[in-house]
Amino acid sequence: MIPPRILCVGAATFDTVFKVPAIPSTPTKVLPTACVQLAGGMAASGGAAIVRLGGQVEYWARVGDDDTGHRTLEDLAKAGLGLARVRRVPGGRSTLCTILVDAAGGRMVVPYYDPDLDPDPGWLPLDEVGRFDALLVDTRWPAGAARVLAAAQAAGRIAVLDADIAPAGVLEQLAPLASHVIFSETALHAFAKQSDIDAALRAASDRLPGLVGVTLGAKGFRWLERETIRTVPAPKVEVVDTLSAGDVFHGAFTLALAEGQDLASAGRFACTAAALKCTRFGGRAGAPTRSEVEAMLGD
Amino acid sequence: MIPPRILCVGAATFDTVFKVPAIPSTPTKVLPTACVQLAGGMAASGGAAIVRLGGQVEYWARVGDDDTGHRTLEDLAKAGLGLARVRRVPGGRSTLCTILVDAAGGRMVVPYYDPDLDPDPGWLPLDEVGRFDALLVDTRWPAGAARVLAAAQAAGRIAVLDADIAPAGVLEQLAPLASHVIFSETALHAFAKQSDIDAALRAASDRLPGLVGVTLGAKGFRWLERETIRTVPAPKVEVVDTLSAGDVFHGAFTLALAEGQDLASAGRFACTAAALKCTRFGGRAGAPTRSEVEAMLGD
Repeated sequence: MIPPRILCVGAATFDTVFKVPAIPSTPTKVLPTACVQLAGGMAASGGAAIVRLGGQVEYWARVGDDDTGHRTLEDLAKAGLGLARVRRVPGGRSTLCTILVDAAGGRMVVPYYDPDLDPDPGWLPLDEVGRFDALLVDTRWPAGAARVLAAAQAAGRIAVLDADIAPAGVLEQLAPLASHVIFSETALHAFAKQSDIDAALRAASDRLPGLVGVTLGAKGFRWLERETIRTVPAPKVEVVDTLSAGDVFHGAFTLALAEGQDLASAGRFACTAAALKCTRFGGRAGAPTRSEVEAMLGD
Repeated sequence: MIPPRILCVGAATFDTVFKVPAIPSTPTKVLPTACVQLAGGMAASGGAAIVRLGGQVEYWARVGDDDTGHRTLEDLAKAGLGLARVRRVPGGRSTLCTILVDAAGGRMVVPYYDPDLDPDPGWLPLDEVGRFDALLVDTRWPAGAARVLAAAQAAGRIAVLDADIAPAGVLEQLAPLASHVIFSETALHAFAKQSDIDAALRAASDRLPGLVGVTLGAKGFRWLERETIRTVPAPKVEVVDTLSAGDVFHGAFTLALAEGQDLASAGRFACTAAALKCTRFGGRAGAPTRSEVEAMLGD
């Protein structure tokens, strides 16, 4: 099989991940037991997971023309993402993000986005969107995401929106443009204004043309398919680090759809990839290979 | 006057400082309103403050031979520190530190020290210690600090120890070697095992050959001089960021002693420099110039 070509679009970050015994509840000094630095961002990490699972990825995003931007691109290139289209914004500052991960899988995330990093998506080569088999788009660069999703809709392409919590209005703008809107649990409740998950899935689906699903962490993946609520459970694993588990899910899910898998099969594939990621420290650096996922699926 | 030559010795860090509305008490996402990156470490930041106040500084420390080490040295060079003696440890990882600063001046500090960053101080050019007018030493590289302080003691040089909280035994090892031991309040209580400040100063002094003092933040500087407790108050300022205020104090204090100022005068000079630093965001980047300190002292 020719590897599917996936376009990932979002906001790139350069992450410093500290493993700490516990995330403190008061201002103090905390001594981490481990530290890794790597380039991230939701769609970028999803893209890195896709590469590891055998897909081809091109990434569209902006970075500043600073040292951090250079390291971000260097690291994403190592992860195998195609970066020819990434825009280096003159005078812009790249996004720095510090993440504390504790032994219980909890995390504190501190991302700094330069308000002056040019949001204008005018440079995006939208006429190329139709060349890809599927898209994975995050919510952290809304102006860019809206353009790309609209182009994917016009070209009839699979376009998965990683619908995490975002400033007011962002999900309302982006979700109607995606073929598959995969919410985080918090974002689903906020979008649908319903505290019950199934009611929220139905309420969201009533407002959106595409498929609506929600990731539930250790409880798996749930979606609404022809008026029926369906769930695939997540494999049980020893959790070391949940950071980027959602990104890995979205990447694997998008790849599986691009390969022609049905929703249940794609959901199972993605839950398995995300669960394997959770067994390893280091955010997306712990994303599994295809053969690891298939071995666990075969069990 | 020829500017005094000060030797600063300690552990170098590369700091990412985020300004946040409030430091969270539960694991969550926090959106900073500002972010700066700069090289630090207690003695390095003290050294940068000394340069800004008109002194000459040489810095002895280790960094890894990685990208972070390169940026650390680049930034300390910009701050005017002499770095010819800094050792780049092959295969070592430089120290990364993330700091959250909230609007109330509170802070969370997360430093990651590579346990494999060669602690062996054998390379230190100890025969050069006598060429300096004074030394400022921090506690974050105990093996190096002990060697340098012993050499300074043998050469009869002023050697200020920035005696912040440290692992068990470190202050016990280093403090007897310094001519001036300037504690943080927490470290003084831990060292002297006394909750009353004056009793703690006397108890610490009974165990140490050098002068004993303590920095008290907004309450100024207190020390024991010929059996008498003395205090200089800190100027009242609008506090924006206390990060590195202690480092600036220790740098200014060391410089003033090297210039021949008496303890009260050096304490006043250092309290004023530290207070001015607190009026500006960005850690040591907010350290004042000589003329700013003298203008405030003149008021």
